[in-house]
Amino acid sequence: MTIERKSLRWNGWGPVNQPVMLPDNAPQWTWMAEALGMTSLPATKAKPLDEITMAPSRLNDDLVSRLSAIVGGSQVMLDNYERAFHARGKSYHDLLYVRAGKLDMAPDAVVYPRSADEVLALVKLASDEDITLIPFGGGSSVVGGTNAMAKSLGGVVITLDTTLMTRIIQIDKIAMTATIEAGIYGPALEEALQKHGVTLAHYPQSFQFSTLGGWIAARGAGQQSNRYGKAEKWLVSAKLATPKGMWTTESTPASAAGPNLNQLVAGSEGTLGVICEATVKIHDIPARKDYRGYLFKDFKSGVEAARRINHAEIPVAMVRLSDAPETFFFQAFSSSSAQTSLKSRLQRAYLRFRGFGDAPCLMLIGHEGDDDTVAWAQSRTQAIATGLGAMKLGTSAGERWYHGRFGSPYSRDPMMDHGIGIDTLETSTRWSNIENLRDKTVAAIEGAIAANTPTQNGKGIVMCHVSHSYPDGASLYFTFVFPRQLDRETEQWQAIKRAASDVLLENKGTISHHHGVGVDHTPWLREEKGEIGFQLLKKIKAEMDPNGVMNPGKLLG
Amino acid sequence: MTIERKSLRWNGWGPVNQPVMLPDNAPQWTWMAEALGMTSLPATKAKPLDEITMAPSRLNDDLVSRLSAIVGGSQVMLDNYERAFHARGKSYHDLLYVRAGKLDMAPDAVVYPRSADEVLALVKLASDEDITLIPFGGGSSVVGGTNAMAKSLGGVVITLDTTLMTRIIQIDKIAMTATIEAGIYGPALEEALQKHGVTLAHYPQSFQFSTLGGWIAARGAGQQSNRYGKAEKWLVSAKLATPKGMWTTESTPASAAGPNLNQLVAGSEGTLGVICEATVKIHDIPARKDYRGYLFKDFKSGVEAARRINHAEIPVAMVRLSDAPETFFFQAFSSSSAQTSLKSRLQRAYLRFRGFGDAPCLMLIGHEGDDDTVAWAQSRTQAIATGLGAMKLGTSAGERWYHGRFGSPYSRDPMMDHGIGIDTLETSTRWSNIENLRDKTVAAIEGAIAANTPTQNGKGIVMCHVSHSYPDGASLYFTFVFPRQLDRETEQWQAIKRAASDVLLENKGTISHHHGVGVDHTPWLREEKGEIGFQLLKKIKAEMDPNGVMNPGKLLG
Repeated sequence: MTIERKSLRWNGWGPVNQPVMLPDNAPQWTWMAEALGMTSLPATKAKPLDEITMAPSRLNDDLVSRLSAIVGGSQVMLDNYERAFHARGKSYHDLLYVRAGKLDMAPDAVVYPRSADEVLALVKLASDEDITLIPFGGGSSVVGGTNAMAKSLGGVVITLDTTLMTRIIQIDKIAMTATIEAGIYGPALEEALQKHGVTLAHYPQSFQFSTLGGWIAARGAGQQSNRYGKAEKWLVSAKLATPKGMWTTESTPASAAGPNLNQLVAGSEGTLGVICEATVKIHDIPARKDYRGYLFKDFKSGVEAARRINHAEIPVAMVRLSDAPETFFFQAFSSSSAQTSLKSRLQRAYLRFRGFGDAPCLMLIGHEGDDDTVAWAQSRTQAIATGLGAMKLGTSAGERWYHGRFGSPYSRDPMMDHGIGIDTLETSTRWSNIENLRDKTVAAIEGAIAANTPTQNGKGIVMCHVSHSYPDGASLYFTFVFPRQLDRETEQWQAIKRAASDVLLENKGTISHHHGVGVDHTPWLREEKGEIGFQLLKKIKAEMDPNGVMNPGKLLG
Repeated sequence: MTIERKSLRWNGWGPVNQPVMLPDNAPQWTWMAEALGMTSLPATKAKPLDEITMAPSRLNDDLVSRLSAIVGGSQVMLDNYERAFHARGKSYHDLLYVRAGKLDMAPDAVVYPRSADEVLALVKLASDEDITLIPFGGGSSVVGGTNAMAKSLGGVVITLDTTLMTRIIQIDKIAMTATIEAGIYGPALEEALQKHGVTLAHYPQSFQFSTLGGWIAARGAGQQSNRYGKAEKWLVSAKLATPKGMWTTESTPASAAGPNLNQLVAGSEGTLGVICEATVKIHDIPARKDYRGYLFKDFKSGVEAARRINHAEIPVAMVRLSDAPETFFFQAFSSSSAQTSLKSRLQRAYLRFRGFGDAPCLMLIGHEGDDDTVAWAQSRTQAIATGLGAMKLGTSAGERWYHGRFGSPYSRDPMMDHGIGIDTLETSTRWSNIENLRDKTVAAIEGAIAANTPTQNGKGIVMCHVSHSYPDGASLYFTFVFPRQLDRETEQWQAIKRAASDVLLENKGTISHHHGVGVDHTPWLREEKGEIGFQLLKKIKAEMDPNGVMNPGKLLG
């Protein structure tokens, strides 16, 4: 295993020995309780695995020996840690179950193949024997994409963990493509590529604990997708093990030879087959990175800046605009001492003097590339930002963000330990609809939280940022913090999710920009694709996986 | 009709009253005959329509009245001109038939709907009655994509001409998207958009006589695709009339809501339904256009320049590199007087002095955008070109090309009138394979021409250029001129086509970069997509068009 399973939290984010992020007496807890209308924060620790009774594996000896014949006996895992680790993904919704010790839905076995041929043999076995097979990379899905759901009640479920498949098969430094096994984790992938002076530069927030195959399967986006592209853009070709056999998709740079089937692989979420290898576009390691901050008077002018940067065709790695609540929240959450609190009071006074009111919005602009391009592009983006009244915050704000760019997910476990829920959801829409969609979605989430709180004054903190942008529009990423309704936690979450998702679909947003569909978004996929498109996707699934054994219940419900 | 059918050549390129391009006594004819090893040029005029006997339309009165009930009686055409005009596309292969008066394969009727609803009614009628329906826009396909093939021998064929559907439905100048009816011709589309200060800037060589729907259906590429994108890139959403009903695809800027079905529409070539409307990405009309020429010592250094320009992330509208034969041919073909001939001799002497030998390669680089971007990008591309030893030719070479950029197709009719064949084919491959693929394809075409000539010394002129480039590779566009084997013309063409296509597939090229599959490329599609991918495409077709009435024989054979 490239990351030893036992070194990772089976029911949370990051390593088991992750240092405590905020001690119980940190001032942030008091501030948060107040902001959420909570009189006190309950202690809501997760149940340790050794206190949880799991149903025994339903795998019979015959199946164990057939799996062992494919991958070797030591690669077939039946122990509780492996089964619990692979039971669900890393969504707030998943954590509600695993933290409470509800492990009814756990795989009966976890297998770790070492090659595409082994994967194909496993897929064929599953299809022939009508056994559910769940492809699993880092397992970082936040939409239930790797949950160990059986295709039918009581059926055996095998999870196929790809993380032993980590080879760099080929690097073509002329075409700037690399062919890589899909089970490789982000850090190992970048280390291996960067040894050769090249990078994929796909850095999602989950980078440390997600894999190449997962990025493609869920159409993931790295934080620098403006330069390096979303997964479907940097994907050149894929090799999938499917019930129909090994499927290698077309790989030319551009083609008019019919529909591009790579675009069916991207977003297939393990429902058509297991992505074993992928050829991807790589880049020289950028000679220079320049990240800096700008403060806009309001969200509207920041959105306008992001739009103009895209339309002006300026090479940019990242344009990230926080709305006023998010700008404020991260300032508050990271202010832990009286000193910084004084500093922030002084800063706020200065901003009022400059006419920024109480709701300024932080934009971070990142440039990556050669010195010449970065210098030219940076001067152009700065001119657009300041031309729209933004205040320059310099590179320190950018560097601070860059340093902590994978940090947010680590805050969830401590929050959940203190009776606080935190979840995210994301969408994209056209530039002409960005503010409308943000406003309506924030209102929907706030409303659903207010209607589903444990205390009379309970309320949510709802924040939003634009993180990925395109010629025709941008993504909106919502983070919401709320007091947990401990007696009806899944109902509370569902109520919020439903309210937000309905608003997204009613207002020309997509149900997901980069998290994927998984289980959680299936109720909205049919509407988004339309009945004809949805039925077409079902036929595609039926053709590739006639017995329906591949990741059932995901994507198409 | 936006372009009156009778004003266009039914069996050639452009308007009926197109001025004669080269008079019979032009010096180019002598030069070409010599270059092709022909002792003389035969007169091989096309047969006029009034000398051709067409089989009567098989449409019965009932069907005429049912079609008339949908589109109106005046929009159902049964006359010979309409049937001949819509019989085939504009490939060399097609012209062999229509110029010889072989019109066995002509539609029984041509209908001109005026709205998406009318199209849907026609599609449903065709599907219900099991009648072949051929979607037809400009009919400029060079791969047989609109040929009036019946789904079964002797069956009725109706061609659906979309060119009355030309409305601009919406222009969103914030998101920079436009929703447009798909039957609009290139010039009308640009005129309508540019009135509003915006442009799609999709300029294929066929621009004057091709339509929005056709560009999408065949995954077309405009000459400035580096900046504006191939059709599949600028397509945001499509509305198709299919036998299953009206299908509107997803439209958000980017999404993780499963596979992107727009990428099944792009390249569907009328086999799934008729594209009635499309939402596309538009741009401000560029403030500045800068096209200039560079002369490279050889093809290899030119390819390297194109590659570096792409990898350096420089905003560029076009990078077009002719190989040495093409550079020479266009020089020779356009030199019509003794004066320019002297001029070109002097130029060649100067090039030898500069060390360019006899095989220099012309590159044209185009920049479009705001003044600042164009100036910066132009200085960067120039530095790359000159850094690789290229000689600057200035803007005049670029402007000359720009002025005549839609001109090449007009040369085919006069050549065919003189016993000369000319055809093109195109592919794309990775940068690391560009020269290998060019060399092998040129050799294959030359070999096939030499093996299939009317005279002992007959030979071809085979030229190539790179016209569209990407991070991972580029297109290669081959033009070949050859003496027509008048007694076995289709066999001659097939021999050349087969030799070239086999080499493309054996050497990691795609069977088409932007012409599409149509009929002509179907024998190679299965290999390119692989058996699994190919069967998947067949299932997709079967789902959308269960009776197989939509453009049968195209794409999937």
